[in-house]
Amino acid sequence: MAEDLTEDGDDVEIQASVAPWQHVRPIGEDIVATEMLLPAGHQIRPVDGGALLAGGITEIMVRKKTRVTIIPTGNELVPPGTRPTAGQIIEYNSTVFAAQVSEWGAQAHTHDIVRDDFAAIKAAVAAAVEQSDIVLINAGSSAGRRDYTADVVAELGEVLVHGVAVRPGKPVILGIINGKPVMGVPGYPVSAMVALDLFLKPLLYHRQGLAEPMRPLLKAVFSRQLTSALSAEEWVRVKVGRVGQRHVATPLGRGAGVITTLVRADGIVRIPQQKEGLVAGEEVNVELLRPLASIERTVVCIGSHDLTLDILGDLLAQRYPGFSLSSAHVGSTGGMMALRRGEAHLAGIHLLHEETGEYNLPFLKQFIPNVELLLLTLVERDQGLMVLPGNPKNIHDVDDLMRADVSFINRQRGAGTRLLLDARLQAKGLSPDKINGYRREEFTHLAVAAAVAAGSADTGLGVQAAAQSLELDFIPLAKERYDLAIPRAFLHEDKVEKLLEVIRSAAYKEAVSVLDGYHTEKTGQIVMQGVE
Amino acid sequence: MAEDLTEDGDDVEIQASVAPWQHVRPIGEDIVATEMLLPAGHQIRPVDGGALLAGGITEIMVRKKTRVTIIPTGNELVPPGTRPTAGQIIEYNSTVFAAQVSEWGAQAHTHDIVRDDFAAIKAAVAAAVEQSDIVLINAGSSAGRRDYTADVVAELGEVLVHGVAVRPGKPVILGIINGKPVMGVPGYPVSAMVALDLFLKPLLYHRQGLAEPMRPLLKAVFSRQLTSALSAEEWVRVKVGRVGQRHVATPLGRGAGVITTLVRADGIVRIPQQKEGLVAGEEVNVELLRPLASIERTVVCIGSHDLTLDILGDLLAQRYPGFSLSSAHVGSTGGMMALRRGEAHLAGIHLLHEETGEYNLPFLKQFIPNVELLLLTLVERDQGLMVLPGNPKNIHDVDDLMRADVSFINRQRGAGTRLLLDARLQAKGLSPDKINGYRREEFTHLAVAAAVAAGSADTGLGVQAAAQSLELDFIPLAKERYDLAIPRAFLHEDKVEKLLEVIRSAAYKEAVSVLDGYHTEKTGQIVMQGVE
Repeated sequence: MAEDLTEDGDDVEIQASVAPWQHVRPIGEDIVATEMLLPAGHQIRPVDGGALLAGGITEIMVRKKTRVTIIPTGNELVPPGTRPTAGQIIEYNSTVFAAQVSEWGAQAHTHDIVRDDFAAIKAAVAAAVEQSDIVLINAGSSAGRRDYTADVVAELGEVLVHGVAVRPGKPVILGIINGKPVMGVPGYPVSAMVALDLFLKPLLYHRQGLAEPMRPLLKAVFSRQLTSALSAEEWVRVKVGRVGQRHVATPLGRGAGVITTLVRADGIVRIPQQKEGLVAGEEVNVELLRPLASIERTVVCIGSHDLTLDILGDLLAQRYPGFSLSSAHVGSTGGMMALRRGEAHLAGIHLLHEETGEYNLPFLKQFIPNVELLLLTLVERDQGLMVLPGNPKNIHDVDDLMRADVSFINRQRGAGTRLLLDARLQAKGLSPDKINGYRREEFTHLAVAAAVAAGSADTGLGVQAAAQSLELDFIPLAKERYDLAIPRAFLHEDKVEKLLEVIRSAAYKEAVSVLDGYHTEKTGQIVMQGVE
Repeated sequence: MAEDLTEDGDDVEIQASVAPWQHVRPIGEDIVATEMLLPAGHQIRPVDGGALLAGGITEIMVRKKTRVTIIPTGNELVPPGTRPTAGQIIEYNSTVFAAQVSEWGAQAHTHDIVRDDFAAIKAAVAAAVEQSDIVLINAGSSAGRRDYTADVVAELGEVLVHGVAVRPGKPVILGIINGKPVMGVPGYPVSAMVALDLFLKPLLYHRQGLAEPMRPLLKAVFSRQLTSALSAEEWVRVKVGRVGQRHVATPLGRGAGVITTLVRADGIVRIPQQKEGLVAGEEVNVELLRPLASIERTVVCIGSHDLTLDILGDLLAQRYPGFSLSSAHVGSTGGMMALRRGEAHLAGIHLLHEETGEYNLPFLKQFIPNVELLLLTLVERDQGLMVLPGNPKNIHDVDDLMRADVSFINRQRGAGTRLLLDARLQAKGLSPDKINGYRREEFTHLAVAAAVAAGSADTGLGVQAAAQSLELDFIPLAKERYDLAIPRAFLHEDKVEKLLEVIRSAAYKEAVSVLDGYHTEKTGQIVMQGVE
């Protein structure tokens, strides 16, 4: 070895002994000519590139990328960047499809939006079939009047399948034109993604000569009862959390039009056709959409909705990359029930006890007496009535809700905000039955504010920050305490400790102080160390 | 719903009953203004793009990509596409690094090869630090005479670490110049990849605000004894197979310069510092480099080397994407031992029994009498002496190996080819001790051929196809039968059935028939249905 030589002019002194063959590298130790380096259908990883170059190979034959053309259709669609008017929808499906197609190893080309016109759609499809390997026609695949896709495919080629026994995703169309697969993809974003996953993904991987990658499976306990139609397989989007020793899967909303349920989903549970649904506590196989490691680092918060939970989640992710806060909004009472069932690490609650005037504690003692808890204040906040700017209906207190010309929008049963309303009505001797809209329910402050802002209700009760964000006027009625209840069993889990640290940070208080109607003097204070 | 209306001129007939609020979609069902869509540090997936556009967001702030400059250095390096002369090395590390850096979310720029010249390296590093966020200097990090990296970093900035207790990867240099991280990466490709994985990967993910993705872990049984230095953590590359009910990890070669060991590796086993090594049968945690699903679909073949195993693996992967054949070359006897230890699904063997003249069966009965097997012929092939074109040393049979002017290269102990030589020597009454090079061992036919082609030995025994592929002359000595032994317990595993189907296919026989000295008349024939 060079290190063991000393040179002196023309002389070289060898300073270490050497055994026979010790520093000799056998020929062909790494690669021998004609030996197979990589089999067919192999995806080239960084090290493979090295082995190829080391073997003197600078060019290899690869599969041509599949070219997929996406044709969005619909009179109601406007391109992103446009502000939609009533009845218009921002066309975002094609962006999602294109990104998904590219993730599955193909190349996407997106056509301009085509209006609901048979001839125009037919012309676009015919041209796309010429120029690409696969064509996706978005929407027009269900049975509505202006749903031309099936007819277009039938005229240009053949419809093989129209409708499948899967929900969401049912109205998919599978056809073939000039030997090329053409797919009518449902318009609702969740239906669309299910249909692409079921029918496009295997096709794209097959064309690459690769096995379709499977989502990792996780056994979890299903937290709710859920009924499912016998006629179709149902894909249920779920949040998954590791709470204590078990993984809990909680279903998200089932609306096929709600893309945020896919954004928030940690996994998919498939309920087979002919199965009536799932019972609470049933073991299910979850197909994971996020790495398990990231699920393990998620704090599950179920309970009342508060705007600052978003701030908390954002700061947690910034300070501790990989950690996250998942919050489900089911109201304060729902949160306590979730703690009792072992589905959450913590619950956000703000329940005023009418008789004692005390917040939260009496309810915890009543509903979950057997769970030893830490109760910690997150924020104090102003609750009040939200109205349109200028208060056109001249609303000033809950008495005005009795008026025939005032429509109200309520929060769901079990929500602290609803209880606050009920308490106030009772104190004033007013009957909820007289309120126009008392039974119309929303699940969050922002949804109530949005209903008021859109004019579908004249007023609703909520926090000031929700009114502020939608530029509504606000009539304060009460200042309330919003606490987090955390079972002691979870207090020393790493992720919960990290969340508590963020709650007590200056950054959290600063971010909250920007919002109207929030008070952080008591933030992080411990109300109670344990209940027996 | 439009589907339930019939229009007749100006009249519209409603044909289905509707309950209150039934077809009304609540405002804010999907997204409400000011609600957080995605937290900080979130990687945008296809559905996330849809949610952003649906929320009217067409621009977002993202992290700038980290720019990494890679500087290859060394007088011995030539760029890919050049045919290296003796002592030259094709510079492929920078290509591997660049692909790896890009997989880890950064942007790579590769500098031209810099000669071993202090001033030139210093100038290149100084310029790279100006233009990038991180600089990698490849090689020059160990203690050899021409290893300038540490001195360059020390002159321009500060060396923080020189050498770490990890093997391979030991001679890494970590430094800082003008506040920017600079890394001296070892020259051996495996050392380099370990060093990048340990020190660059966390840095790149940290700069993206993301948690470093962890390789999935798998518990496996380590198949061999392996001693490891106490002074360092050792990263052992392993092949992993699911054989029967357990996962078996078999170590690959440990040479830090052998990039194909990384290409072939299914995972990494880390032996901690202060641990003397692993014993056969010890449970280990394997960090997987391939998805578990792909490992489950791998047929593990351990035994004698045959060139047509590559063809078999290639056809299997083509016909059944996702399935693969992993073959380790340890000789026929080693293959039988692997079956006995339950480490392989099948073993390739070609052992001539001198007394009976029978192939393979007598050895199986002797070595693994308790394993019930199927024995199936893969090919028959010609074995003989490989010599340089024109046979300059005039070699015609094993008698010529006794000559003082003839050097030989042998196969390893337990290889059928070596036993064939021994049998022939004994039949002629010749002593192996007289052969110059009898103790010099190679593990494959191609390695023997490569040694002869390079002139480091005059001749060696091997199959004709190996001679053919390196354009050597071939003196046939025997036609032998190469069989596959498969324990009956594995015969009905899906992957083994698929492999058997490929063996019996016309495609396999056609591909083999292109090679000289192979005979496929008996391919797929069953020699024996079971041994008790």
